[in-house]
Amino acid sequence: MGPAGVAAAAQVFVPDLDVLSVAPDDVHHLEHALRLRAGETVVACDGRGAWRTCRVTAARDGILEADGPVHHEARHPTELTVAFVPVKGGRPEWVVQKLTETGVDRIVALSSKRAVVRWTAERRDGALSRLRRVAREAAAQSRRAWLPEVDLAAGLDELAGRLAPVPLALAQPGGDHPSTALPALAVGPEGGWDPSEPAQGYPLVGLGPTVLRAETAAVAAGVLLCALRAGLVRPAT
Amino acid sequence: MGPAGVAAAAQVFVPDLDVLSVAPDDVHHLEHALRLRAGETVVACDGRGAWRTCRVTAARDGILEADGPVHHEARHPTELTVAFVPVKGGRPEWVVQKLTETGVDRIVALSSKRAVVRWTAERRDGALSRLRRVAREAAAQSRRAWLPEVDLAAGLDELAGRLAPVPLALAQPGGDHPSTALPALAVGPEGGWDPSEPAQGYPLVGLGPTVLRAETAAVAAGVLLCALRAGLVRPAT
Repeated sequence: MGPAGVAAAAQVFVPDLDVLSVAPDDVHHLEHALRLRAGETVVACDGRGAWRTCRVTAARDGILEADGPVHHEARHPTELTVAFVPVKGGRPEWVVQKLTETGVDRIVALSSKRAVVRWTAERRDGALSRLRRVAREAAAQSRRAWLPEVDLAAGLDELAGRLAPVPLALAQPGGDHPSTALPALAVGPEGGWDPSEPAQGYPLVGLGPTVLRAETAAVAAGVLLCALRAGLVRPAT
Repeated sequence: MGPAGVAAAAQVFVPDLDVLSVAPDDVHHLEHALRLRAGETVVACDGRGAWRTCRVTAARDGILEADGPVHHEARHPTELTVAFVPVKGGRPEWVVQKLTETGVDRIVALSSKRAVVRWTAERRDGALSRLRRVAREAAAQSRRAWLPEVDLAAGLDELAGRLAPVPLALAQPGGDHPSTALPALAVGPEGGWDPSEPAQGYPLVGLGPTVLRAETAAVAAGVLLCALRAGLVRPAT
């Protein structure tokens, strides 16, 4: 059972389900953006599968009090990964938000020779914490018990090494039909992978008959993999 | 055969494939945004299935000259419709762009009691032509031979009447698995359909195990229906 099945006004991530201390940004969001009042139900979740229902209290010191036992949602044994190459003028935050909503477990922003955006060491940390914040907000919005992992990778080979023995596949028009047998998909930049990049030897997966923008292809990959894993659709033969 | 299979620098919609007169906005886009030079290949398309390859000319009066025969792409016999309710702070342009890329045939912006955005008669025309312009740009970008129809509807019953005998189904958590047997899906506003609205009696289709924002649900509906129609995935039994 997951928090999505509970009638609650909101979900919030907390480090400890016994202490229930809510980060100042989240307090502000609950009180001002969502205008929750004392007595309303909120799901508190640790982002690692454990969650419980709480009530908003009137007291100022800690705005939640526990109102139910701690539940645990098991992580799905088939972990889904979508990697994408942030491009100039693109919206990596948007891609991370949508992939989090669809339910993928790992989101990777990938460098590429054609990436256009190249993060310097200093900017990398800022970019990564911004993307993780977006994922946390989207995970609360879509009532996920597990926060997705959000990471950077320098290239396909580095990512493939990290995922092994799970194979990494590349989204490519004309590739094989998607299936959870290839649960990790990397979507290239507009214009495809650079021929000088080591994109050889990876299995290829097609995402549809139309030409998709890179960011749309990343979201389509997430939608299809999650729908296949949930049994909403079946793989083509 | 469609224009997506042709190596071309760009696609442009023109009213007549013999005359090849390109709208001023499109000339500007080809010359300045894409920086096409004389001799480069461009697909010209009438948006109703007919298209031909052309070359950019150096002459100022009409920047394209025909460079191949006119091809015709048949419209798919199963027409896919996704309807969504534009919400305050939402991005209907973004939804229309993504749905056009995925390949749906008809995109409908739907009024609802919970729509928050209500278009007055004057603002309606402006909103509709803005959405159609977005669809045209996205269709060129994704090399579609058929422009999607973009329309407004006052509510579910009006839309259902227009689509009949094709049934209209509503996206709803816990609904049936998606399939092209229900090729027209309406995605409700955040918070669901208003109980006073005549949302009774429509078949329900589920889009996944997670809670999706309304705009994400609309795009997921397009991705899944188009993938099912293309045989990329099969319907669950």
